[in-house]
Amino acid sequence: MDIQELRTRNPEHWMRSTAIRALALDAVAKANSGHTGMPIGMADVATVLFSKHLKFDAKTPGWHDRDRFILSAGHGSMLIYSLLYLCGDEEVTLDQIKNFRQSGAKTAGHPENFLLKAVETTTGPLGQGISNSVGFAMAEEMLRGRFGKKLVDHHTYVIAGDGCLMEGVSQEAIAIAGRHELSKLIVFWDNNDITIDGKVSLSDKTDQVMRFKAAQWHVQEIDGHDPEAIDAAIEAAKKSNKPSMIACKTHIALGHAAQDTSKGHGALTNDEQNVAAKDAWGWTTGPFEVPADVKSWWEDVGTRGAADRTEWEGRLAEASESRQKEFERCMTGETPKKLSATIKALKKQLSETQPKVATRKASETALEVINPIMPETIGGSADLTGSNNTLTGDMGVFDTDNRKGRYVYWGIREHGMAAAMNGIGLHGGLRPYGGTFMAFTDYARPAMRLAALMKTPTIFVMTHDSIGLGEDGPTHQPVEHLAISRATPNTLVFRPADAVETAEAWEVALNQTATPSVLSLTRQNLPTVRTEHKTANLTEKGAYVLAEAEGKRQVILMATGSEVEIALAARDALQAEGIGTRVVSMPCIELFEQQDEAYRRKVLPAGPVRVAVEAAVQFGWDKWLFSERGKRDKGAFVGMPGFGASAPADELYEKFGITAEAVTAAAKGLL
Amino acid sequence: MDIQELRTRNPEHWMRSTAIRALALDAVAKANSGHTGMPIGMADVATVLFSKHLKFDAKTPGWHDRDRFILSAGHGSMLIYSLLYLCGDEEVTLDQIKNFRQSGAKTAGHPENFLLKAVETTTGPLGQGISNSVGFAMAEEMLRGRFGKKLVDHHTYVIAGDGCLMEGVSQEAIAIAGRHELSKLIVFWDNNDITIDGKVSLSDKTDQVMRFKAAQWHVQEIDGHDPEAIDAAIEAAKKSNKPSMIACKTHIALGHAAQDTSKGHGALTNDEQNVAAKDAWGWTTGPFEVPADVKSWWEDVGTRGAADRTEWEGRLAEASESRQKEFERCMTGETPKKLSATIKALKKQLSETQPKVATRKASETALEVINPIMPETIGGSADLTGSNNTLTGDMGVFDTDNRKGRYVYWGIREHGMAAAMNGIGLHGGLRPYGGTFMAFTDYARPAMRLAALMKTPTIFVMTHDSIGLGEDGPTHQPVEHLAISRATPNTLVFRPADAVETAEAWEVALNQTATPSVLSLTRQNLPTVRTEHKTANLTEKGAYVLAEAEGKRQVILMATGSEVEIALAARDALQAEGIGTRVVSMPCIELFEQQDEAYRRKVLPAGPVRVAVEAAVQFGWDKWLFSERGKRDKGAFVGMPGFGASAPADELYEKFGITAEAVTAAAKGLL
Repeated sequence: MDIQELRTRNPEHWMRSTAIRALALDAVAKANSGHTGMPIGMADVATVLFSKHLKFDAKTPGWHDRDRFILSAGHGSMLIYSLLYLCGDEEVTLDQIKNFRQSGAKTAGHPENFLLKAVETTTGPLGQGISNSVGFAMAEEMLRGRFGKKLVDHHTYVIAGDGCLMEGVSQEAIAIAGRHELSKLIVFWDNNDITIDGKVSLSDKTDQVMRFKAAQWHVQEIDGHDPEAIDAAIEAAKKSNKPSMIACKTHIALGHAAQDTSKGHGALTNDEQNVAAKDAWGWTTGPFEVPADVKSWWEDVGTRGAADRTEWEGRLAEASESRQKEFERCMTGETPKKLSATIKALKKQLSETQPKVATRKASETALEVINPIMPETIGGSADLTGSNNTLTGDMGVFDTDNRKGRYVYWGIREHGMAAAMNGIGLHGGLRPYGGTFMAFTDYARPAMRLAALMKTPTIFVMTHDSIGLGEDGPTHQPVEHLAISRATPNTLVFRPADAVETAEAWEVALNQTATPSVLSLTRQNLPTVRTEHKTANLTEKGAYVLAEAEGKRQVILMATGSEVEIALAARDALQAEGIGTRVVSMPCIELFEQQDEAYRRKVLPAGPVRVAVEAAVQFGWDKWLFSERGKRDKGAFVGMPGFGASAPADELYEKFGITAEAVTAAAKGLL
Repeated sequence: MDIQELRTRNPEHWMRSTAIRALALDAVAKANSGHTGMPIGMADVATVLFSKHLKFDAKTPGWHDRDRFILSAGHGSMLIYSLLYLCGDEEVTLDQIKNFRQSGAKTAGHPENFLLKAVETTTGPLGQGISNSVGFAMAEEMLRGRFGKKLVDHHTYVIAGDGCLMEGVSQEAIAIAGRHELSKLIVFWDNNDITIDGKVSLSDKTDQVMRFKAAQWHVQEIDGHDPEAIDAAIEAAKKSNKPSMIACKTHIALGHAAQDTSKGHGALTNDEQNVAAKDAWGWTTGPFEVPADVKSWWEDVGTRGAADRTEWEGRLAEASESRQKEFERCMTGETPKKLSATIKALKKQLSETQPKVATRKASETALEVINPIMPETIGGSADLTGSNNTLTGDMGVFDTDNRKGRYVYWGIREHGMAAAMNGIGLHGGLRPYGGTFMAFTDYARPAMRLAALMKTPTIFVMTHDSIGLGEDGPTHQPVEHLAISRATPNTLVFRPADAVETAEAWEVALNQTATPSVLSLTRQNLPTVRTEHKTANLTEKGAYVLAEAEGKRQVILMATGSEVEIALAARDALQAEGIGTRVVSMPCIELFEQQDEAYRRKVLPAGPVRVAVEAAVQFGWDKWLFSERGKRDKGAFVGMPGFGASAPADELYEKFGITAEAVTAAAKGLL
C-alpha cells in the first residue's frame, strides 16, 4: 500500500482517520498490551461511518433512537475508544485513553457495555457481536412495528473481522438476518487476510461474498481505505432491502513495519517502528496529541446528531402521554404493575385445580397470562416450539410481512438465538425469552455467559431437563447443565417443582433488570405440590419449607423440580416410621444464597441429617449437605452418577436409583 | 410424490429400500417414541450407498480400512439400525429392533458409538456428526500419508439434515473440509424442506448449494428417490478432488399421511395411517417381517465387503513386522513404551533446572519430547498457536501438499476443532490435541461433552486459565470453566502447578483410552514447586502432599495450578508464626476422587482447618472444605467472587484478594 498516495489523495480525511491510528498506537504501546493493527486498518471506514452516516450524539450516548454501532471484532477496542474520545464522549477522557487496560479504567481490554454507555454490547469472544447485532436489528424492526417510524427508525452498523466470520455462530446469525430481511443491518468485514496464526489462507478459503449472498445478503466489495468508496457503499447498503455486507479490503497495521502480517494483529510496542509508522503517516504531534483542527472536526462529528436527537425528542413529546409512558417503561425494562396480581391470580387457580402437568406446559400456562399484559415479550424457540411450549396464541409470528409479530422461529440455532436474544435485550424496549432442550445449553453457552457478564436479563427456557425426557437418551439428557449454569456468576437458575413454582419463577425472572435466568423445565408431568395458596412468591427466596416435619425433626430432604415429588413421597415413608422429616424445595439456589443468614438457618437448621435429591450430578451440592456453621450434620445425595441412558423415563429413574425408596434409605443410613 | 411411479420404476430397488422404511415404521410405533420420517425419506440413498459403494463387512464392523458411515441426523437412528439388521450385523438382531429405545437395548434413541461397534460416532446433537466426519476424513488422509494407500484408503460418507446445516458448527466444519480439499468426504443432504417447527422456510432461506460452493465444495443436486441418480452422483463425488455435497431432494415420511409435513419428523404411531402407508408402499408382510428374498439380498450386501477386507488383511500381512506392529499400536491407542521413561527424564531435568515458566510453555516443553516418540499425535490450535504453545518443531503442518503434516491450523473455530478432533480420535490411529483459551471452553462445549460420552480421549489444551491472563479482561478470563469441565462426567481436568506437574499431566492424559482430558494452563510464569525429583507420577493420584507441616498440623492448604505458589507462600507465613501447615497440590480432582479412602484420608486427614485456593469460583469446592467423615473441620475458600476485570495480572490478584496474605488470614480466622 502506498501511504503517500493515501495521504495525498484526501489529506483532510487522512489526518482525521489517522487520529484514530495514532491514539491506538500510543495507547497500546503505553499499556504494553492490546491490539493495534485493526484500529489502524479500519480507521478509514470508521471515520466515514461516524462522520457521514452514524446517527449518534456523543454527549447523549443512551438516546433511544440512535444508530447502534457494534465492534464485533472487540479486540480492536482502541478503535471505539479513540472514536469516543475524539467525538467528545464524556466518559472517555484522554486520561482514560492513557489508562487503556489498566485497573479501574473504563477503557478495558475489550469493550464492556457495563463500563461505557456508548458501548452497546460486550465483545471480544468472536462472532458474538455480529450475532448480537441481528438481535439489535430485529428489535428495531419490532419496535418500529409497535411504536412507528417516528419513534423508532435507526440502523445497526457492525465491524466484523475474519475471526467473527469463521466462528460458526456467524453463520447462524447471517442466516437469521437474511431470512428476515433485516435491511437496516449493515456489516463491514475487515477483509485484511490476516489472523493470529498467519494468512487467512492457512485455515480458510471460503468465498465470503458468495457465502453472504447464499444467506440472502446484499454484498459489496470495496477498498477499505478509500473514503469515497466507503461512503458510496454505505449509501447503497442503506437503500438495499436486504441486510448488507460490505467487504472492505484493508491493510492491517497500515503503514507500520508490521503491516499485512500477523504480527500486526497484536500489540505493536517497538518504539522505533512506531515512530517510523507515525512518520509514514505524516503524524507529527507527540504521543496522545491530536492537532487542534482535527480534534475540533471530530468534536463537530460528535455533535452532528444532536439535532436528530432533539427532533426525535420533539416527536416523542407529541405522542400521547400513555404512549410516552409505555415507550419509556419498555425502554427501561420495568415490568407492568399488573404482573404481580396476574401471577397471584394464576397461582391461586393452580393451587385450587392442582393440575398434573409438565413444568414446560406450566410455563406455557404462565406465558398465556404474561404475554397479553407484557407486549414487550419476544418469544421463540430453536425449532422446538411444540416441545418448549414457548408460543402463546396472542403473540403473532415475526416475519417480513409482520414486524409486529412477537414470536421468532429461530431454526436449529441455539447459539444464534441466544446471542440474538442478548442483542434484543441490550437494544432495549423488549424482553426476549427463547427455548431449547436443556442439554443444548452447551450450544448456547458462549452467549449465556455473556448475558450474565453484560447484565442483560435474557430468559433461557430449557425444557427436557433430566433423564425424565426418557428415550432420546444421554445426548439429550442434561446431567451437568444445572451445575454449569449455577457455576456461572450473575445467573439465576430456576428449577420449579410444579405449576405454581413455575409461575413464580417467571415473575422473578421477568423482574430482573440485570441478571439472566435459566428456567429448567420438565418434559414429564408433575403433580401440584403447592396445594395451599400463598400470595407471597416463595420462589423469590430461593428455597423454603414445603412440608414440615411432624414430631422431632430428624431429617431434612432438599430437592428441586421433578425430584420434589420424590422427596415428598420419601417424607411420607419416613414419617410413617416415626422419623420427623422436613422437605425443603429449592427452586433457585442462587436466590437462597442471597438471603440473610437467619433465613437460611431457619430453612436449613443445623442438627437433622440432610439428603439432597436432584436428577443431576452431585457437583455443587456438597455445600448444602453440611450446615454453614460447621456442625457435624451428615449429608447424602441421591442423583445421577454420570450420563443417562435411552429408555422410558420411569425405568430410568429406577435404573439410576432416584426414587423415594433410595431417599428413604439414604436418610435412614445417616441416622 | 407418486409412490406408484417409484414402485414400478425400479420394483426391486423399491422393495429393498422399503425394508428400511417398514422396519423404521414398526420399531418407532412399537416404542411409541422416535423419528420415523427421516429413515423413510432417506431409504433410497442409504440403499444405493450400502449396496453399491460403502466398503464394509457387516460381520466385521471394526475392520480398519472400512469406509466410515456417519448418520449426522442421529434422530433418524432407525435408518442405521435397519441397515445393520438387514445386512446381518451380529449385534443388531431382530430382537434389538423390536426393543428400539428400551432399557438395555443397543438400539438406543440416538446412535451411540459405545453401544454398537458399527456406529462410528454418537450423534443426535445436530451438527456434530458432520463435524466429526471432517476429522474422520482428515484422519484418513493423515494415516494414508503415513502408512500408504495399501493400508489406508477409504471414504467417509455422511447423512446430514437441515438441522445439521443450520447449526453454526457445520459452517466451521465445511470450511475446514473445503480448505483441506478432503476429497474423500461425501455428504448427503436430506433436503426435505421440513424441520420440527414446520417448513424450513419458516426459519431459513439459505441457498445451501451456493453456501457449500463458497466453502470450496463439489456440489450436486439430485432426486433423492432416484437410485440411478444417487449412484451416478456418488460416482461423480468420488471422482471430485474436493469434498462433495449431494443435495438429495427427498420427501420426509414418503407415502405416509404425514409425508412432507413436520408431523412426519417425529414418531408416527397412528395404526391406521401406518397400515395405509405400508399399503401405499406395497409392503404386505407383517410387522418386523422382511420378505426372504429382500433379506437375502441385504445379507449379500452385508458380506459384499468381506473380500475387500481379506485383501486388505493380506496387504497388511505383507508389510514388515515392525510396520504391522506400529500400525496396530496406533489403531488401538496404546502409547509407546518409551513414553514413561521420556517423561521421567524430562521431570528429572525440570526438577534440577527449576524453570520459572508458564505452564502453557511447560506444556510445549513436554510436547517437544512427546511428539518425536509419538508419531500418532496430531496437534493444532484455533488460531492461537503462539499463545497455546501447541506446535513443536518436528510436526510439520497438515496441508493439501503435506498429508504427513501433524499440525492443523484450525482457524477461529473452537467448536469445529473440538468436533473434528473427536472424529480424528474415533477414526483410530491418531491422538489429537488442540488448543484455545480456556474461556472458550464455552464454544467447544458440545463437542467436549460428546468426547466424554463417547469415551474418546481427546486432549483439550486450554491456556490463559484465569485472571492471570490480565488485560484481556472478563470475556477472556475463565472463572466457571474449571467447574464446568469438572461437573462433566468422564472428564479429567488437569491444572498443573508447574512444569513437572505439566509433564505428568500430559503422561496421564496420553495414557487414557476412554476419557478426554482438559489441560488448564497458565499464561503467566510460575516457579517450579516440584524441586525434588520423584520417579512416580504424583499427578496420577490427583492430589498429594507437596509440603508437609512442621510441628503440629493445624492447617491444610489445598490449591491447584498457579495458586499452589500462593499456598506455599502462605504456608511459609503460617509456619513462621508456628502454625503447622500442610500444602496439598490437587492437579486433578477427578483422579483424587478415584483413589481409595485410605489414600484420600492420608492426604486430607480430618482435624486441621482447610483452606482451598483457586482463582475461580467456589462452586464444587465445598466438598473438600469438610472432611469426608463429617468431622467438624472448618473450611474456607479463597478465589473469585464472580467475573474478572481488565488490568495487569498482578493487580488483579491483589484486587480480588487471591494472595498469600488472604490465605493466611483465612486460615487463622478458622483456628
